[in-house]
Amino acid sequence: MSTGPAVVLLSGGMDSAVVLAEARAAGHSCHALSVRYGQRHSAELDAAARVAAALGAAAHRVVDVDLRAIGGSALTDDIAVPESPGAGIPVTYVPARNTVLLALALGHAEVIGANDIYVGVNAVDYSGYPDCRPEFVAAFERLARVATKAGVEGAPLRIQAPLLALGKASIVRRGLELGVDFALTVSC
Amino acid sequence: MSTGPAVVLLSGGMDSAVVLAEARAAGHSCHALSVRYGQRHSAELDAAARVAAALGAAAHRVVDVDLRAIGGSALTDDIAVPESPGAGIPVTYVPARNTVLLALALGHAEVIGANDIYVGVNAVDYSGYPDCRPEFVAAFERLARVATKAGVEGAPLRIQAPLLALGKASIVRRGLELGVDFALTVSC
Repeated sequence: MSTGPAVVLLSGGMDSAVVLAEARAAGHSCHALSVRYGQRHSAELDAAARVAAALGAAAHRVVDVDLRAIGGSALTDDIAVPESPGAGIPVTYVPARNTVLLALALGHAEVIGANDIYVGVNAVDYSGYPDCRPEFVAAFERLARVATKAGVEGAPLRIQAPLLALGKASIVRRGLELGVDFALTVSC
Repeated sequence: MSTGPAVVLLSGGMDSAVVLAEARAAGHSCHALSVRYGQRHSAELDAAARVAAALGAAAHRVVDVDLRAIGGSALTDDIAVPESPGAGIPVTYVPARNTVLLALALGHAEVIGANDIYVGVNAVDYSGYPDCRPEFVAAFERLARVATKAGVEGAPLRIQAPLLALGKASIVRRGLELGVDFALTVSC
């Protein structure tokens, strides 16, 4: 079964490894895309490369974007990360991160002629992040269809977020079913 | 008159200089944002810095994002740029460029608490680009309102594209009215 090329955002963490496995299981030729956005844990990118190879990605690219220049988050700034987040939007929120990641994925999808972009956003365990919700995924999909040559010409661009409604235990179970070796991943 | 901070995408070209002047005329404290995306004409960034200073921007930041890693355009690849573009979508199209630029601007807007993002997209002279059309601007504005903490909390996020429906002559006339020194800019 071949369902054409797909772009898969790959962080090196558990969630996106499961997403890559899902994209492979759906028959896609998977073009993994990792983003070095100034985060402190560059070990994630090494893990992403391992995961891409182990799960049979057709390619793995790393794009540099320096989110530190726009400021404002404990994940990339030199401020302390709290042990236990409080209510509401976490201090580790990176401004517009998933919008930036999906924008880069969209550009790559246009270059390789992919109609599907896979992303590991999850609304259950990350409910405090605006850009991890179904409304966000749907709005980005609508944007993609007017933002690109392919969309304008009628390609059925899809943002695939297979983990959106799953809890962590379900994500792990699904990964094991699909043969994901979680030892290759890092926790974010 | 103060209408709060605004993020202004500034390329160093004529159009975005006029946009910065419009944002200043509207009373905003202007936070200019330029993106070094691997384009060949880095003279644009020098021009952007001159324009930001001359037009009284409150700040000017440069964000690096290497679009070459996602490939596919004569503006950033080592392929020839045609002298006269043909019909349809130009070969100089950078995949998802305005989506990426607006995503970065959105992140910066959230950090500084800006409700307004100004961008020099223009549907008249660049009608072949999908991401220079009113539909694109409207779709990004809808995305912004679900993608960010500010949007979710009800901030009236706006994508301001004051040049959207103007021809080149009108843009130049408006710039002269607003005191833009076009000698500081570069043509893209």
